[in-house]
Amino acid sequence: MTDMFDTSLPPLFGVLGMVCALVIYVVMTRYEEGGEKIKKIAKAIHEGAMAFMHREYRMLFLFAAPLFLILLVSPLGINTALAFAVGALTSALAGYLGMFAATKANVRTTHAAQTSGAAGALTVAFYGGSIMGLCVASLGLIGLGGLYWYFGGDPDAVHAIHGFGMGASSVALFSRVGGGIFTKSADVGADLVGKIEAGIPEDDPRNPGVIADNVGDNVGDVAGMGSDIFESYCGAMIATIAIASTLALGGEFGISALAPLATETGQQALMFLPLALASIGLACSIIGILVVRSMSNSAPETALRMGHQLSAVALIIGAYFLTDFAGISLNVWWAIVAGTAGGILIGLVTEYYTSKAPVISIAESGKTGTATVMITGLAVGMQSVVIPILAISAIIYVSTDLAGLYGVGIAAVGMLATVGMTMALDAYGPVADNAGGIAEMGGLGAEIRAITDGLDEVGNTTAAIGKGFAIGAAALSALAIIAAFVETMHLHNATFSLELSNPKVLVGMFIGGTLPFLIASITMTAVGDAAMEMIEEIRRQFREIKGLMEGTADPDHTKCIDIATKAALKKMILPGIIAISMPAIVGFGLGGESLGGMLAGALLGCVLLALMMANAGGAWDNAKKYVEKGNLGGKGSDVHAAVVVGDTVGDPFKDTSGPAMNILINVMAIVSLVIAPLL
Amino acid sequence: MTDMFDTSLPPLFGVLGMVCALVIYVVMTRYEEGGEKIKKIAKAIHEGAMAFMHREYRMLFLFAAPLFLILLVSPLGINTALAFAVGALTSALAGYLGMFAATKANVRTTHAAQTSGAAGALTVAFYGGSIMGLCVASLGLIGLGGLYWYFGGDPDAVHAIHGFGMGASSVALFSRVGGGIFTKSADVGADLVGKIEAGIPEDDPRNPGVIADNVGDNVGDVAGMGSDIFESYCGAMIATIAIASTLALGGEFGISALAPLATETGQQALMFLPLALASIGLACSIIGILVVRSMSNSAPETALRMGHQLSAVALIIGAYFLTDFAGISLNVWWAIVAGTAGGILIGLVTEYYTSKAPVISIAESGKTGTATVMITGLAVGMQSVVIPILAISAIIYVSTDLAGLYGVGIAAVGMLATVGMTMALDAYGPVADNAGGIAEMGGLGAEIRAITDGLDEVGNTTAAIGKGFAIGAAALSALAIIAAFVETMHLHNATFSLELSNPKVLVGMFIGGTLPFLIASITMTAVGDAAMEMIEEIRRQFREIKGLMEGTADPDHTKCIDIATKAALKKMILPGIIAISMPAIVGFGLGGESLGGMLAGALLGCVLLALMMANAGGAWDNAKKYVEKGNLGGKGSDVHAAVVVGDTVGDPFKDTSGPAMNILINVMAIVSLVIAPLL
Repeated sequence: MTDMFDTSLPPLFGVLGMVCALVIYVVMTRYEEGGEKIKKIAKAIHEGAMAFMHREYRMLFLFAAPLFLILLVSPLGINTALAFAVGALTSALAGYLGMFAATKANVRTTHAAQTSGAAGALTVAFYGGSIMGLCVASLGLIGLGGLYWYFGGDPDAVHAIHGFGMGASSVALFSRVGGGIFTKSADVGADLVGKIEAGIPEDDPRNPGVIADNVGDNVGDVAGMGSDIFESYCGAMIATIAIASTLALGGEFGISALAPLATETGQQALMFLPLALASIGLACSIIGILVVRSMSNSAPETALRMGHQLSAVALIIGAYFLTDFAGISLNVWWAIVAGTAGGILIGLVTEYYTSKAPVISIAESGKTGTATVMITGLAVGMQSVVIPILAISAIIYVSTDLAGLYGVGIAAVGMLATVGMTMALDAYGPVADNAGGIAEMGGLGAEIRAITDGLDEVGNTTAAIGKGFAIGAAALSALAIIAAFVETMHLHNATFSLELSNPKVLVGMFIGGTLPFLIASITMTAVGDAAMEMIEEIRRQFREIKGLMEGTADPDHTKCIDIATKAALKKMILPGIIAISMPAIVGFGLGGESLGGMLAGALLGCVLLALMMANAGGAWDNAKKYVEKGNLGGKGSDVHAAVVVGDTVGDPFKDTSGPAMNILINVMAIVSLVIAPLL
Repeated sequence: MTDMFDTSLPPLFGVLGMVCALVIYVVMTRYEEGGEKIKKIAKAIHEGAMAFMHREYRMLFLFAAPLFLILLVSPLGINTALAFAVGALTSALAGYLGMFAATKANVRTTHAAQTSGAAGALTVAFYGGSIMGLCVASLGLIGLGGLYWYFGGDPDAVHAIHGFGMGASSVALFSRVGGGIFTKSADVGADLVGKIEAGIPEDDPRNPGVIADNVGDNVGDVAGMGSDIFESYCGAMIATIAIASTLALGGEFGISALAPLATETGQQALMFLPLALASIGLACSIIGILVVRSMSNSAPETALRMGHQLSAVALIIGAYFLTDFAGISLNVWWAIVAGTAGGILIGLVTEYYTSKAPVISIAESGKTGTATVMITGLAVGMQSVVIPILAISAIIYVSTDLAGLYGVGIAAVGMLATVGMTMALDAYGPVADNAGGIAEMGGLGAEIRAITDGLDEVGNTTAAIGKGFAIGAAALSALAIIAAFVETMHLHNATFSLELSNPKVLVGMFIGGTLPFLIASITMTAVGDAAMEMIEEIRRQFREIKGLMEGTADPDHTKCIDIATKAALKKMILPGIIAISMPAIVGFGLGGESLGGMLAGALLGCVLLALMMANAGGAWDNAKKYVEKGNLGGKGSDVHAAVVVGDTVGDPFKDTSGPAMNILINVMAIVSLVIAPLL
């Protein structure tokens, strides 16, 4: 069966995907950038974003280099160290290229709205997002598939690829947590002084923090989100490969569905399946992107939804033929279906909580003031965890019933296989958002702004779906990695057990449960502190730069970008250290049982907080937008003042602390998997 | 050894405790009530509180009677049904008597402040709280100890006393959840219209909601808190008895410390120990109360702290002689010490987070507006979970290491044994708070108000410590009950296991984790809705009652009390049904493993949310008080407006949803334990 699967195919698919990304990039950059004024604004955003990336990656290198050396001299050896480097490099490259393209697409979207209306603008914005999507999917396959090909699928050598996950996680830590702090300190700072104190609109060019705010959308929601999804995408594949590699012939194969595969080639097929599935997923994503492109004259919402759903359907069909061809039980296919469907369901629930009745109830509660807006928003966020977690539970239940722990892993891969398309939708949002900001700063008038607002609104919906999906994917991927960790521990110690009534496991679970709260607290405080610095700088500029308020003098953007950059990089050190060191501290200090318990407690806590924070934040954001559309008194009313506070609190919830949960659990899971043989 | 322990002693200790309570009541009521005006106000509070209790208990009867019949006809039989009834009756009686006394003590405290200054006022207020404390401790011993004596300590009959816990939990559900909704809908409603819209001070007699607010302090913080502590107190004892009763001779006794007790009498001694320890604890509480009384001329803080700590020291000494006398290993004594010390530590951490640097940081963040107050407060709450949970983990680790699961149970009993004193401190707070409210409403002038404010401030500290303690105690008690559940399942099925990599356990854990979020959401929404009704009624009265604002006409208090009562009783039905039915749904639907996983996930989620909400709420409250003392601009400043919002959001956090977590996990744990033999 190994002959049937050519292990060089996934990296080749990846190369093909990169070629597609390049083609899209060339087509996209052929669109005009427009007038000098908006070109200048866009240049400032692009350069600010790239400057942040350069500094972030320099710091990442300082962090990763010693880690690389530690892995090299550790008993894990050169293969793990190599995989770590490849994982870090491919993830960093995906974020870099995707964000580079996104910051080229924003101004072209603005200009396309001027010249060819909504359809043209949608096309350009979506092109911008697609490049990020294809980079994530393709570079993941090139990196991970390349290593798999290089190691020749040898079950013994395969432990080394866990290092790839650790590399990807390190980048995610920097990009998602650092980027999250950057984006929200800029956003909150610019909003508090600009909108509330100075009384000028959002994205007003006189506001010194406004370029930093737009840079933040890119470093947080494009590059940060990309590294988050990259980590889950590769994590799910790595975990599935690991579970397959630990399937002792005749042992776990006892699961009747996998029994016919209880041969060496059968195991090879199960190990290779995630990579093959992701390759098909990449092809399906390209199909989805073409569908959106071909429907650019439809309503943006319809086009994006159609592309998304068709790529999922294509994947399910492709997976059927793949498993059939490989002689793998239909049960495994059903697990893939469960994962894919679950991912879509979680996205839809997120959309409901951040757009429908719950949002209106938050806005309505603004009639009795800010406090009730806060209470209602928190209640909405808390309630919104129920259905997604039941969905995740159902996926776990069904997929393990169908194919044991392998089922959980392959379900996660199924959820993430069309990541090219999902990520394209995610990255489309900030491009459209930036395009609106550029139109506002460039003074392009209400008509253009109406087009970009329309795109942005759809972008908010896709972003909400994307966030829910990212959480579900991170949870399932982390769970698969934890399952792989447990299996690895079993290999070394047959009596290893995570029995909850063992106090070691229980204590681990309690410790694990506190970590998401601690990290959420640290990152929220970080945003608060950084925003405070930003506020002082913006106030200083309004005070000291003569003519700024009147529009006759320019603000000093770079100073604000610099503050956000420094704060982001400084404030992510502590959460980063906690995430990376806790598995080692608990694992070596209290033992593998406590570490397993810790991962379970942290997984539960992370998923709950991530969902709550993302959905409360999204709902507050949209409640503000609902009022700003003229409902309940509209802009300037008391209700508006109340929902603006909700939105400001929601900012770090949904874009800093919430997403940090995905990273926290995946970093801890992958570090645990890497150190498992040493415990 | 059974001969050494006379099982009639604990109920006799209980009767003695009740006699003490009666003596204190007689002494307390000898103090004067003061002038007609404050007498009238106090009468309204007393009658409002008792009216709520009557209606609550009527509804409780309608709920408990069918449950009693179900238990009666179920395979669990008459003994369980009888224990259920006794548990419900004793808990209800403790709440009733304690609150009756507290609403007699409040006005006497006000008057004592007028006539004999701070020392006299402290004495009366603390007397008021002590009666509640002694009622909880004594009636617990009378009820549970009486049943134990009646069943003769027969390990087979002992399963029936689980019904006692279920009865106590049913009352707690009504008192704590219903009371929590009552108190905060009144408080939030009165504050939002009074302070913000009408611009009149807190506790202003013109505000129609102000009597309801003061009634709320009693039904929530006296009766509700009492039922919460009663449930934990008896739950811990029941669980420890259950664990001891399932110790198969030679089996679990394998724990070396318990090995010499591997005889029938040894088992009897272990089963009886929690009741004996609680009896000693009651005596130590009385000592503590006397210490506070004798120090009434010292600073209130010093007197209360000294009484609290001396009772704990006395308990530790008493426990040493008790275990020595019973021939029980010193290990068990150390487990008791761990529990007692852990309870004090958790209280101190709570005090830190709700009074020191974190509170100032919240107030400071008010300089940049409401949003930063919210973010900082939430961050403080999230951070505050870490040390208490590490303390709970340490207790679990140490006590199981010392004496297996029995160690966890007896540590919980150790933490709760001096509940008479702890509860007295808790109930002192609302009495002092009410006394201040009565002084304000009675127009007694700044001097008297300064005395009651001083007592109230100390009350806030003791309340914060008490809340932290209640959470820790509920967690440990629930854990002990869960341990007893696991042991009971083991008895019926030797292969029963809560292995985390079993998907049934994992899915249960995920489901369990969502429940605290769901209940928190429902209860917060309930407060919001009820407050809205209250606001409309108060606005209506200000609009329609001529001369109300000018102080020439009286508001209609009873209408407001009625709204809060109806809302509380209506809105607690859904969370109550969820808490009681989920164990049965998951247990009979998915099986015992999933139920065990659910309890673990819910325990983790409940403790995390309870700590976060209690501490964030307490910190917001005190940040407001800090500003109101004149810091950062004082009353009327922008910072003040910002921290008032924080306080309003914190109200349902700390007094409704947070405390509901204690009830949720204990109700689910005890129901699981009761139905365990049927699974």
